[in-house]
Amino acid sequence: MLESKQEKMENSEEQKYRVRRLEISDKGKGFIELLQQLSVCDSVSDKEFEDRFRDLSVLGDEHVIGVIEDEASGKIVATGSVFIEKKFLRNCGKVGHIEDVVVDSSIRGKHLGKRMIEFLTEHARDMGCYKVILDCSVENKAFYEKCGFQQKSVQMAMYFA
Amino acid sequence: MLESKQEKMENSEEQKYRVRRLEISDKGKGFIELLQQLSVCDSVSDKEFEDRFRDLSVLGDEHVIGVIEDEASGKIVATGSVFIEKKFLRNCGKVGHIEDVVVDSSIRGKHLGKRMIEFLTEHARDMGCYKVILDCSVENKAFYEKCGFQQKSVQMAMYFA
Repeated sequence: MLESKQEKMENSEEQKYRVRRLEISDKGKGFIELLQQLSVCDSVSDKEFEDRFRDLSVLGDEHVIGVIEDEASGKIVATGSVFIEKKFLRNCGKVGHIEDVVVDSSIRGKHLGKRMIEFLTEHARDMGCYKVILDCSVENKAFYEKCGFQQKSVQMAMYFA
Repeated sequence: MLESKQEKMENSEEQKYRVRRLEISDKGKGFIELLQQLSVCDSVSDKEFEDRFRDLSVLGDEHVIGVIEDEASGKIVATGSVFIEKKFLRNCGKVGHIEDVVVDSSIRGKHLGKRMIEFLTEHARDMGCYKVILDCSVENKAFYEKCGFQQKSVQMAMYFA
């Protein structure tokens, strides 16, 4: 069956912007600069990056960081993480926690955020979690609702000096 | 200096209801029944409990479950957990996540919830976290504000069938 032009374009975008796991070489591809669009992250040396990368690698599937690399520019343009919490509650259930989702502000409108959330959500499901949760600003609520999330409660925080 | 009657009472309560880490023998002291006051937790065998206890023990200070045992009854009357998330954000910062806080409904009014939150919060601070966060219902918001937390954002959830 012939592909329509629309389908061809979608498949090509799909290939161009596939989600993969973070690699140690991604620091050189703008991974830290991308995180700066989300919050403070202004001084991470190569050594600190590599140490933290190894800390997280040890956790294997329990803590996964997804990235999307723009193959044209060789830059990381989206990221998000999910880690698995093991509980006693819910009959020794597991919960996926999604954190630090960001899409490069210059490349919005290509549904990379949705693709990233699907990747992280599917990972939590595959790991046997009974739910996956995240905290977001009121402004981003509608986006997560489109991804299949519902508001559950409020997030409280205490910052240490 | 002589202790006032009030101080003596407070010190005695302090001793009676001190927070300690979960022990493997706590299943026999009503730990699972206490969790049932929070959410579903109706079928945890001794084997499942011990397996999960060991899963979490391996994580050491990265995942701590606090409990308060009522020395008079030998029952666990309060619990709460905190785990440490390692990030790249915030210059490879760390965040404490508080989960599954519950105080036995028959023993409220003795500030055991506040004591538990202080224990979990102090642990996150000691571990070098830049913040500690939790999700709660709108009804419990005032309690956490008294503990020094502020509302930050909204919690979204997706439940798997």
